[in-house]
Amino acid sequence: METTITSLIEELSKYLETAQITQNETLLEQHSKDESYHAPHKPLAVIFPKDTTDVQHITRCCSQFKVPIYPFGVGTSLEGHVIPNQPGISVDFSLMNNIVEINPEDLIVRVQPGVTRTQLEKELKKYGLFFPVDPGADATLGGMAATNASGTLTVKYGTMRDNVRTMEVVLANGTTIQTGTKAAKSSSGYHLNGLFVGSEGTLGCITELTLKVFGIPEHIAAGRATFPTVHQAIEAVVSVLQAGIPIARMEIVDEDSILQVNQYSELDLSIEPTLFIEFHGNKSGLAEDMAFTEQLFSDFDCTNITFESDTAARNQLWEARHNLAYAYVHGYKGRKMMITDVCLPISYLADAISHARLMLDIYGLPGGITGHVGDGNFHIVLMFDPHDEQEIQFAQELNEKVVAYALERGGTCTGEHGVGTGKKKYQQQEHGEALTVMRQLKQALDPDQIMNPNKIF
Amino acid sequence: METTITSLIEELSKYLETAQITQNETLLEQHSKDESYHAPHKPLAVIFPKDTTDVQHITRCCSQFKVPIYPFGVGTSLEGHVIPNQPGISVDFSLMNNIVEINPEDLIVRVQPGVTRTQLEKELKKYGLFFPVDPGADATLGGMAATNASGTLTVKYGTMRDNVRTMEVVLANGTTIQTGTKAAKSSSGYHLNGLFVGSEGTLGCITELTLKVFGIPEHIAAGRATFPTVHQAIEAVVSVLQAGIPIARMEIVDEDSILQVNQYSELDLSIEPTLFIEFHGNKSGLAEDMAFTEQLFSDFDCTNITFESDTAARNQLWEARHNLAYAYVHGYKGRKMMITDVCLPISYLADAISHARLMLDIYGLPGGITGHVGDGNFHIVLMFDPHDEQEIQFAQELNEKVVAYALERGGTCTGEHGVGTGKKKYQQQEHGEALTVMRQLKQALDPDQIMNPNKIF
Repeated sequence: METTITSLIEELSKYLETAQITQNETLLEQHSKDESYHAPHKPLAVIFPKDTTDVQHITRCCSQFKVPIYPFGVGTSLEGHVIPNQPGISVDFSLMNNIVEINPEDLIVRVQPGVTRTQLEKELKKYGLFFPVDPGADATLGGMAATNASGTLTVKYGTMRDNVRTMEVVLANGTTIQTGTKAAKSSSGYHLNGLFVGSEGTLGCITELTLKVFGIPEHIAAGRATFPTVHQAIEAVVSVLQAGIPIARMEIVDEDSILQVNQYSELDLSIEPTLFIEFHGNKSGLAEDMAFTEQLFSDFDCTNITFESDTAARNQLWEARHNLAYAYVHGYKGRKMMITDVCLPISYLADAISHARLMLDIYGLPGGITGHVGDGNFHIVLMFDPHDEQEIQFAQELNEKVVAYALERGGTCTGEHGVGTGKKKYQQQEHGEALTVMRQLKQALDPDQIMNPNKIF
Repeated sequence: METTITSLIEELSKYLETAQITQNETLLEQHSKDESYHAPHKPLAVIFPKDTTDVQHITRCCSQFKVPIYPFGVGTSLEGHVIPNQPGISVDFSLMNNIVEINPEDLIVRVQPGVTRTQLEKELKKYGLFFPVDPGADATLGGMAATNASGTLTVKYGTMRDNVRTMEVVLANGTTIQTGTKAAKSSSGYHLNGLFVGSEGTLGCITELTLKVFGIPEHIAAGRATFPTVHQAIEAVVSVLQAGIPIARMEIVDEDSILQVNQYSELDLSIEPTLFIEFHGNKSGLAEDMAFTEQLFSDFDCTNITFESDTAARNQLWEARHNLAYAYVHGYKGRKMMITDVCLPISYLADAISHARLMLDIYGLPGGITGHVGDGNFHIVLMFDPHDEQEIQFAQELNEKVVAYALERGGTCTGEHGVGTGKKKYQQQEHGEALTVMRQLKQALDPDQIMNPNKIF
């Protein structure tokens, strides 16, 4: 492999500048891991493309030398997506971070894959626009598309797949394609856009994204509602969904997580299971939606409900929610974080969360439950001691039990984090014969297995 | 081929009842065509599967004898999808028409592919639910998924692809897969669901669909607004979209089409470019949305706007819109209908429709413009004399010019009808290198080209 990488770098040097190719130890180290508990592996080199042409050269050269490519955004993955677990190169998109076009008339933007979520948000605000996919981390848009990320606003605005209109993708053989058009809908040919979003870099490198954006809603009201039990809170969520109230956000944070949030964000929230909710719309419509929600919540013994329509107060409320994972990392120094990520039909959600809490208690691991319960998606944030073999074992067993519970009820092992290496072992059970079809598609588009190999499959 | 079909029928007879296999001339004739102008071709036989196992036997036998399969719902396609343009068998799903499960708690239903839109609607009404994809025709859900159908409600509720949660599909080799899960979202593996919806029977036969359903909105208000010109009407549409008003339906019907509607539905609507609109929500929210819309419309010289919240009046309004294509067929007896179907970024929509009207006038063909303008999708319904070579030529040229106009502006050649055979010639221009990728996927999953061959590609 050492002579191969030398020849590859020699070949790449014909097309790229010296500064775009590095084997610096610090950089290799930085590209060896993500934000999760997965074991790091250093790449042989890190390459920084500046444009699509560079990416074409990189894929052609890597194809020629059969060296794997591991695309890298900012490394906020939670399932090991960016880790080079076979000898290969890391392709870092941080130099491709231009917002190419903001088109308020068509409500679309074009961005390079290295643009981060908050970078885009800041720019869109100037136009009265926003992009509605908000995972906790300040991930790149390329990474978010690769994993079909979602977040707190997904219950109203959808996932990345729903908000990517088309992408430019460089395939393993160096060919560049557009996965869709700029039209709002199409019945023309196979839906490559849906296939490439969520394909985790295993079918090609995303080099540009055209995204849907939305006008910042005229009126926003956010609120917090507390309940005696998580079970009652979730039943309240289900009743709101069934009533068809167009909720924009609906998040559960359990007692343990409220405790972490209070400590990390210096807040004084009541230590009870809490729903964080938000409504978008016109003034009178919101008032009626809030009143109806309050009425439904009272059927489930809601202990307190407060609304904030002031922007600063709302932002503080959601910042607390978004910082939850970091609150745990901060609160349990020396421990590693594992985040489960199942998603189920909503009728099973309350019981699934009770089961998850029970598992946490049985295994005696510190952690709490949070999630985008409007979608049926919840997370256990659990903190384990990476030097304690039994705790590692327990954490893994717990994850397996939570996943098994979801799969037995028609759910999925990952609602938004993706498969990477962490969820590979559940793919056969979840997909059955469909996994064979996925392998056939991978084989058709990447016969030499150079695009992020050994991920998903 | 004659001996092959005899052997195939002999083999199929081992698994199916005699009545499920027919070579009756009337039935062959009935399965030779769709509702459009495309030339009919009779199948060698028509097979009526009763369940998934039957479909597995059919695909295995057809694979063995390399006889093409042409899936058939009720034949409402407009682009020749169901036409056996190579010698093969038509597989008619009309016996697989059970609504398997209605699950109001999870807001999903399971149906067999032969269930029609109005059959489902009738049943869902009993539960206070509705399914939001409403093409004009009373198509089967299987056919609607195959073409990624959409309709008047798509601007709010999305296309078939957005509303199919998972499907059971029998592949060319007889393997049966589930394309997704029952969870509201997933980042697990490739998005096969999005790939199979809209694949027009070229990758497999749909044998069951799990669909999202919605509670019938608490309040619905529908209205009609007239404008001096189509251009102003479309500019009014764009302003409503940009203002983020959550419109549920937004349809244009031009003067010529209003004339047809009046005649066919015995109405007396003012002969002006008209927007048919609808709002779903709570009472006070609707009032505010309607007032804001009225205000925006007045900026574009709206001549009259009326709202109906009475159910019967609303139904009459939308029935008139839904019957538009039939109104043309009725109004121009002896002529054939061609419906164009482009979709563009909304900023180009007003000019695209002006261009379309100009083309109709230049070629001197009778017809009008209508469409789901909230999505940027519009149709020319044009009526040509099938015995007049020059009119046929003109109709085709017109279609080509309208498609070229859309493709040059980042649009698509088909917003909702699909490719079939009618839009094959535009695929290279629309998709470029991506078409090669589509071919590779087809080759991977149907190497013997037995699933609806020669469609899309």
